[in-house]
Amino acid sequence: MTSFHEQLSAAVERNDSLVCVGLDPVPERLPAGIARDPEGIVAFNRGLIEATADLACCYKPNFPFYGAFGARGVEALQQTIDAVPDGVPVILDCKVGDIGSTAERWAHMIFDELGADAVTVNPYMGADALAPFLAYENRGIFVLCHTSNPGAADFQRLPLDGSPLYEEVARRTVEWNEAHSNCGLVVGATQAGCMARVRQLAPDLPFLVPGVGSQGGDLESAVGDGLKADGTGVLVNASRSIIFASSGDDFAEAARAATVALRDQINSTRQQTRT
Amino acid sequence: MTSFHEQLSAAVERNDSLVCVGLDPVPERLPAGIARDPEGIVAFNRGLIEATADLACCYKPNFPFYGAFGARGVEALQQTIDAVPDGVPVILDCKVGDIGSTAERWAHMIFDELGADAVTVNPYMGADALAPFLAYENRGIFVLCHTSNPGAADFQRLPLDGSPLYEEVARRTVEWNEAHSNCGLVVGATQAGCMARVRQLAPDLPFLVPGVGSQGGDLESAVGDGLKADGTGVLVNASRSIIFASSGDDFAEAARAATVALRDQINSTRQQTRT
Repeated sequence: MTSFHEQLSAAVERNDSLVCVGLDPVPERLPAGIARDPEGIVAFNRGLIEATADLACCYKPNFPFYGAFGARGVEALQQTIDAVPDGVPVILDCKVGDIGSTAERWAHMIFDELGADAVTVNPYMGADALAPFLAYENRGIFVLCHTSNPGAADFQRLPLDGSPLYEEVARRTVEWNEAHSNCGLVVGATQAGCMARVRQLAPDLPFLVPGVGSQGGDLESAVGDGLKADGTGVLVNASRSIIFASSGDDFAEAARAATVALRDQINSTRQQTRT
Repeated sequence: MTSFHEQLSAAVERNDSLVCVGLDPVPERLPAGIARDPEGIVAFNRGLIEATADLACCYKPNFPFYGAFGARGVEALQQTIDAVPDGVPVILDCKVGDIGSTAERWAHMIFDELGADAVTVNPYMGADALAPFLAYENRGIFVLCHTSNPGAADFQRLPLDGSPLYEEVARRTVEWNEAHSNCGLVVGATQAGCMARVRQLAPDLPFLVPGVGSQGGDLESAVGDGLKADGTGVLVNASRSIIFASSGDDFAEAARAATVALRDQINSTRQQTRT
């Protein structure tokens, strides 16, 4: 069985890319000619996936953008996940976490029923709330560590005997990763210093990095600070800048061009960092 | 417009009850004669709701027990929520939280699409991640504070300059409640001392209290420590002890009897506390 870290590395290498395409279909922003309903969203996503599957190292659909349409939305999510070719992991962004039997049902829903390869989880409820996810040996579990929003200051950066809460989350996640090499961390690009600090604490974990682009995070410093020694380990999430690159019929071509541009920009930083 | 706190108080008063019935249909435990599929779950829940609607102050379906069945499960959840009579609030247990536009979609899904009256949310991402929920003035937002599982020790009880993280969550939630009287806290019954401390910090908020029963929390001390000055303010969640009270055809009658017993036990503690 291939560990999640190995699956991810294979996708990064094959497409020479650290771009994670966020599939967050905001209804009002769907291009002309795409219906603002679950069927429209599936058509939109299929167009995006076909146009970028050789350029992305993973896809990240965000659950509530589908769930907001009720049962039909969940069906659209499943069809979206099915549309991603094998070999490109799908991270379902759900940010959940709950005790024992409930977490088991979340994990069953996300991994078995919807077929995602990885999930984002919230650490607030602690180790036993994440155990049922971690038990899926070859699926990925990205633990929220330091997020990209202003509210990260409210609790995540509060000092625990000198070092902030998010650092403790990083340290614990390194432990949780030991059994199956299936953990990652969500580390936003917006707060200077955080990325480098988390990389110090978790030298081997993949980071899912939101906050570049519309949220104002600087791409070069995020990638520079976040890369592992081997020049990988950072999954730069971009959603709106790719999927809404054009509001016209050419949305898929525009998404492709935006993904190429982002991939190349990241790869140029990777090369500079290596030399 | 009636505030969420007022809606809840009305239900507590009408049924003279602080029992929250948790609708967490574990497939393997469904009674004989109930199909282990979404249709079976709806039939099961309708039976439970009819048998307890005059005894419960709220219902709490737990999202992944439905979502684990995919789109059809979400439909079953919607039918379950629809089956609860007006006047008895439904708290959707989802424990989510995310940034701006994503949280908006979660809130739209939970309140508008599924029609829940309240939700549980995770505070780790901070104030701006909860704002889109809080903006629903007459819906309830229960913020995870100190949960009932062992993992509550991992982060929630870590000391921030002397006082634990969960106390800071309680203090912040009191602030978030100011605008619309629509906040509550999740405070587990399992850790001695926590309940009384949170009640001190948040004298007016309703507490959703898991952990009594199978998790070992003591009912009398949880109720005694958690009650507000007016003898309400504690919603004691019970799920398995009620919904699986019998594994036979008489599951609804058995659920009714278990709810009566729990309600009466709580009310007896309420009376002792008042006198």
